Amino acid sequence: MTTQARNKAEREAYYARIDKKGMTPLWESLHALVPTQPTTDCRPALWKYAAIRGDIMDSGSLITAEEAVRRVLVLENPGLRGLSSITPTLYAGLQLILPGEIAPSHRHVQSALRFIVEGTGAYTSVDGERTIMHPGDFIITPSWTWHDHGNLAEADGGEPVVWLDGLDIPFIRTLGTGFAEPYPEAEQPLTRADGDSLARYGYNMLPVSYEHTSKTSPLINYPYDRTREALDHLQHHGEIDAWDGVKLRYVNPATGGYAMPTMATFMQYLPKDFRGKAQRSTDATVYCAVEGRGHAVIGDARYDFEPHDVFVVPSWQPVQLNADEETVLFSFSDRPIQQALGLLRTQRID
Amino acid sequence: MTTQARNKAEREAYYARIDKKGMTPLWESLHALVPTQPTTDCRPALWKYAAIRGDIMDSGSLITAEEAVRRVLVLENPGLRGLSSITPTLYAGLQLILPGEIAPSHRHVQSALRFIVEGTGAYTSVDGERTIMHPGDFIITPSWTWHDHGNLAEADGGEPVVWLDGLDIPFIRTLGTGFAEPYPEAEQPLTRADGDSLARYGYNMLPVSYEHTSKTSPLINYPYDRTREALDHLQHHGEIDAWDGVKLRYVNPATGGYAMPTMATFMQYLPKDFRGKAQRSTDATVYCAVEGRGHAVIGDARYDFEPHDVFVVPSWQPVQLNADEETVLFSFSDRPIQQALGLLRTQRID
Amino acid sequence: MTTQARNKAEREAYYARIDKKGMTPLWESLHALVPTQPTTDCRPALWKYAAIRGDIMDSGSLITAEEAVRRVLVLENPGLRGLSSITPTLYAGLQLILPGEIAPSHRHVQSALRFIVEGTGAYTSVDGERTIMHPGDFIITPSWTWHDHGNLAEADGGEPVVWLDGLDIPFIRTLGTGFAEPYPEAEQPLTRADGDSLARYGYNMLPVSYEHTSKTSPLINYPYDRTREALDHLQHHGEIDAWDGVKLRYVNPATGGYAMPTMATFMQYLPKDFRGKAQRSTDATVYCAVEGRGHAVIGDARYDFEPHDVFVVPSWQPVQLNADEETVLFSFSDRPIQQALGLLRTQRID
Amino acid sequence: MTTQARNKAEREAYYARIDKKGMTPLWESLHALVPTQPTTDCRPALWKYAAIRGDIMDSGSLITAEEAVRRVLVLENPGLRGLSSITPTLYAGLQLILPGEIAPSHRHVQSALRFIVEGTGAYTSVDGERTIMHPGDFIITPSWTWHDHGNLAEADGGEPVVWLDGLDIPFIRTLGTGFAEPYPEAEQPLTRADGDSLARYGYNMLPVSYEHTSKTSPLINYPYDRTREALDHLQHHGEIDAWDGVKLRYVNPATGGYAMPTMATFMQYLPKDFRGKAQRSTDATVYCAVEGRGHAVIGDARYDFEPHDVFVVPSWQPVQLNADEETVLFSFSDRPIQQALGLLRTQRID
Repeated sequence: MTTQARNKAEREAYYARIDKKGMTPLWESLHALVPTQPTTDCRPALWKYAAIRGDIMDSGSLITAEEAVRRVLVLENPGLRGLSSITPTLYAGLQLILPGEIAPSHRHVQSALRFIVEGTGAYTSVDGERTIMHPGDFIITPSWTWHDHGNLAEADGGEPVVWLDGLDIPFIRTLGTGFAEPYPEAEQPLTRADGDSLARYGYNMLPVSYEHTSKTSPLINYPYDRTREALDHLQHHGEIDAWDGVKLRYVNPATGGYAMPTMATFMQYLPKDFRGKAQRSTDATVYCAVEGRGHAVIGDARYDFEPHDVFVVPSWQPVQLNADEETVLFSFSDRPIQQALGLLRTQRID
Repeated sequence: MTTQARNKAEREAYYARIDKKGMTPLWESLHALVPTQPTTDCRPALWKYAAIRGDIMDSGSLITAEEAVRRVLVLENPGLRGLSSITPTLYAGLQLILPGEIAPSHRHVQSALRFIVEGTGAYTSVDGERTIMHPGDFIITPSWTWHDHGNLAEADGGEPVVWLDGLDIPFIRTLGTGFAEPYPEAEQPLTRADGDSLARYGYNMLPVSYEHTSKTSPLINYPYDRTREALDHLQHHGEIDAWDGVKLRYVNPATGGYAMPTMATFMQYLPKDFRGKAQRSTDATVYCAVEGRGHAVIGDARYDFEPHDVFVVPSWQPVQLNADEETVLFSFSDRPIQQALGLLRTQRID
Repeated sequence: MTTQARNKAEREAYYARIDKKGMTPLWESLHALVPTQPTTDCRPALWKYAAIRGDIMDSGSLITAEEAVRRVLVLENPGLRGLSSITPTLYAGLQLILPGEIAPSHRHVQSALRFIVEGTGAYTSVDGERTIMHPGDFIITPSWTWHDHGNLAEADGGEPVVWLDGLDIPFIRTLGTGFAEPYPEAEQPLTRADGDSLARYGYNMLPVSYEHTSKTSPLINYPYDRTREALDHLQHHGEIDAWDGVKLRYVNPATGGYAMPTMATFMQYLPKDFRGKAQRSTDATVYCAVEGRGHAVIGDARYDFEPHDVFVVPSWQPVQLNADEETVLFSFSDRPIQQALGLLRTQRID
Repeated sequence: MTTQARNKAEREAYYARIDKKGMTPLWESLHALVPTQPTTDCRPALWKYAAIRGDIMDSGSLITAEEAVRRVLVLENPGLRGLSSITPTLYAGLQLILPGEIAPSHRHVQSALRFIVEGTGAYTSVDGERTIMHPGDFIITPSWTWHDHGNLAEADGGEPVVWLDGLDIPFIRTLGTGFAEPYPEAEQPLTRADGDSLARYGYNMLPVSYEHTSKTSPLINYPYDRTREALDHLQHHGEIDAWDGVKLRYVNPATGGYAMPTMATFMQYLPKDFRGKAQRSTDATVYCAVEGRGHAVIGDARYDFEPHDVFVVPSWQPVQLNADEETVLFSFSDRPIQQALGLLRTQRID
């Protein structure tokens, strides 16, 4: 037996001994635990809406909204199968609600965003206010607020409505801070008029008596027609950024910060034939195409997108966004967490 | 000579002696210096627009905007004559700009608000962006930003335009922090499109690259049609507060705080036949009527107002607001100063 | 009559007319109201302690602490006589308390600092905690907290004690936010042990249950022996700044901000033979010498100081600090107000 | 085949189909994903120092500090084996450094705390300042700062020194934000005197020129003798909380917040025969006994502790702390993350 072999044997005996006491040697795993660059199981992926729309609609006959509570197909990252995660901290899914259905009221610590994909007639109620969903709207259900979803009867103009759900489920699971509660009725009572939160908080004014205590925006719905109006002006008169086109982030009007404490949301416009420069950041990001057509280059792979397609860019993977037509993209990530803790890094590559 | 008289004489001799050394006895003035309730030289006052409009228009033939630099009639509080002050910390004046005129570009530490009273065609330029003035608009020129005002030629539709200026001139004078500088040209160059700041900052979204470093709102103009839309919704669907009717404060969209660091601005709606309950606060407040007709009771005195009338409520004076018709009131005060320093007190009486 | 004379007469008639309506023409006073550099009535001044100590002691036989409520000689700025102000926003005075006396309990909106000049045995009680005064200690009575002062009986070691009071009296008067109230008893009851606030808040730790809601530091006393210890280390091991020597600001341990919302306080060390470079700032500043000997050059004038001397530097006046011996200076200004509102300017000359 | 069986088969066929497209049905896992109470793999555990001290010392002859880079035995939670985690977000380990050794300089995004367990002579250098370690000291190496550890030669009084490392390694791994870099030399150069950061930032004063831009405390070392002095005063004069005894949190003197952005640290005193009431919170917490003897009841199990023992309490598990002698406990958790995001819940049980 050589010295080296003896040492190795000695170390392994030692490791076995301390293992029984709940300990391991750091020096055998230091480089994996403290990597020189971010390592992640998250992988780039794209879900073509055309390929899954049928499945979404089929779910409508497979189970009722009431039985399902939330009739959602979860988009699982190929590197995170079994974890209901699209990134290590975020969950995404496509939810269907049919005319006349109700997804019953509950509340949970997890924050949720709804980005409306297609259909009209559905609505979400949050803390006593109902808001009608329109494609492109960004709707919030803040942490620990009662919320339920519904849809008009077909006779009243209800259509199947699909939206993209984004939640911080994996993050809350990691922290061990999740609580949830069902509401005693299917729907909570409505105590405020439609459009109330927009009138109160959405006009660069606030009620004099309002005190902001939540970490989440008091605006329930950021309607697409307004967002589009801002993008329209800036695409005509502002500068087009070589990496981002025209990119706006949704803002909590009571603080100027992100609309939600754990998820950042963005809408961006890319001009026809835009060829974005490469960039990367530590916040893995989920995109949903709204208008136009183009492709993302993530690492070395190309992902072609059309309206309603969803794709995900992992932490620190270079990404380029390209548009063949005028394109609008919605996106979200855990950037507020990273920024609050001083952890976000971004790099613009030429 | 009695003991008392001897003591008095002794004290007066002492006071005379220390007076020469730059000292005075606190105990002779303690109650005035540390009063049990706020004391102020500011008095309630009202300026009827009908009574002064002629004077404002006359100023147009008395002096040019160019010669005057700013052709303004200063509203001096009757208790503060000679100090160019409407309250101990604030200045207010009515500014006239005629078709074709330019009020030359400069900048100063004093923050300024412009509340548009009548006329169309005028504009203000701030930091490279021009904004058209419409009655009811609330326009900002932040501390130390270049700004100039102009008006279209009569041939192009310019009319005499009058607005209410509000500045923190007396406050800055007290602190000894005032600086000013003229711009080398009459007008600064325009580098951004009309409506640019509204598109960038006014839609509950912010450009991703925007970093807010100023203490002032990046929005130059809060247009009246938007403000009115919010009030309209809330008057129909919200609760009417028994003291304030429906009252909104203008907000810096990048922080949720006041639009300016030293002046708060508000717009409020009073329903027809509203009889407001009495209240008081430590921030002396300037009001300007926009729509409707009514009267304020300040202390024991009644002040009837119509559109464009200006009135002022001193610190800690009880005030009731009453409306004979549907009424809209603009107001401003130094509330952000008081609040930042923990000094604001308010009381709802009744 | 020439055209010019006619114009002048016309204008004067106009001015007389609008004057009756409570208005004045801005254009006649614009440059004074919006100056290119700060203008102030405040003037540099020095009070030699040796020249006024006798007067302070004489006040002890002129009036009792009880009758006076606060037996203070107010230091009035020569440019602000009659206003009880050492700067436009600040008040300073030298307070005497004799053995066995009590200055009765009250509270007021005005914030107060006590900087102990000479003597031992006196104490201040704030919100139920008593703190013993030692020369060089910086003691706070926050806005609207009950406070009273006392002194041991001569038999128990009480000596006449003098301290420098600094309050924001003129500032509060300008804002119109002053309230005051006497306590029903001469002294408030003590509910906490001596040194309690230092133990709770002064060790870079805070009680887990503590929630900071005040704008003022929870530390009542910043003892001189601690302050001197920090200066000692830094004078030996740190760099000596060419303008300031070694200058520390007192900090609210719950926020890292100033100890009081309206007044900044500083202690600085100047090495023997230090010749400070000139600098200026918009916050008029009051100095009190603690140790050593030197002179300040304010504008063109020289002011020699020894321990306990007080001098004041107006807004934007250049000042140089020079030391003939190792020197320690305490100082205070309204810097937190200026900084909170984005108004502070400083300039290092040379 | 019954209807139910047919439905089940239909659903399973559907699940298999969508699984191939990277999707899963939310309704099958909703309750696990959005639990009514926190669920966690983390389990209560205790490491008796007496049982592992020999292993720690043995590691000194198994591998050099230089070869190991960091010679640490990782304490792995029994519910998280293989993950180098003591809680889902935190890492803990016991590090040994022998006389004359150097653990080479590097930096990483992960924040680290060192809580000194036994021995004298060792030091840590952070950003150009060296601090000597004494038992009970709490030492910080902030995110992305160069740091190395060393120990005096035996001849100079160096002894084997052991400390508890706490890092946010699992949390940074989840976010995907980890970067690391070795320093080109074994030790970084020293540019500041011993005790420099304590003198600058530790006396409730800050240098006037200091601007706090980091998320971490500028204090490198919170020495135990100071911490003990604060506890001593409060145990004699303050109230003993029925749940916590006397519990202080370490504070960033520049902000009043936690000393680190991702980890809270606490020191608490329990009187002899203290029987703490039960409480729980969502932040899993690691304890290290400093003085005394006692036991914790976590859920239903009892864990007896003596000095240097380490134990962990999972999220939302009730815990009671009991002391047989006067006891001092250090603890840390991810509370700042939970609080920054509005996720922390605590409950005091009677």
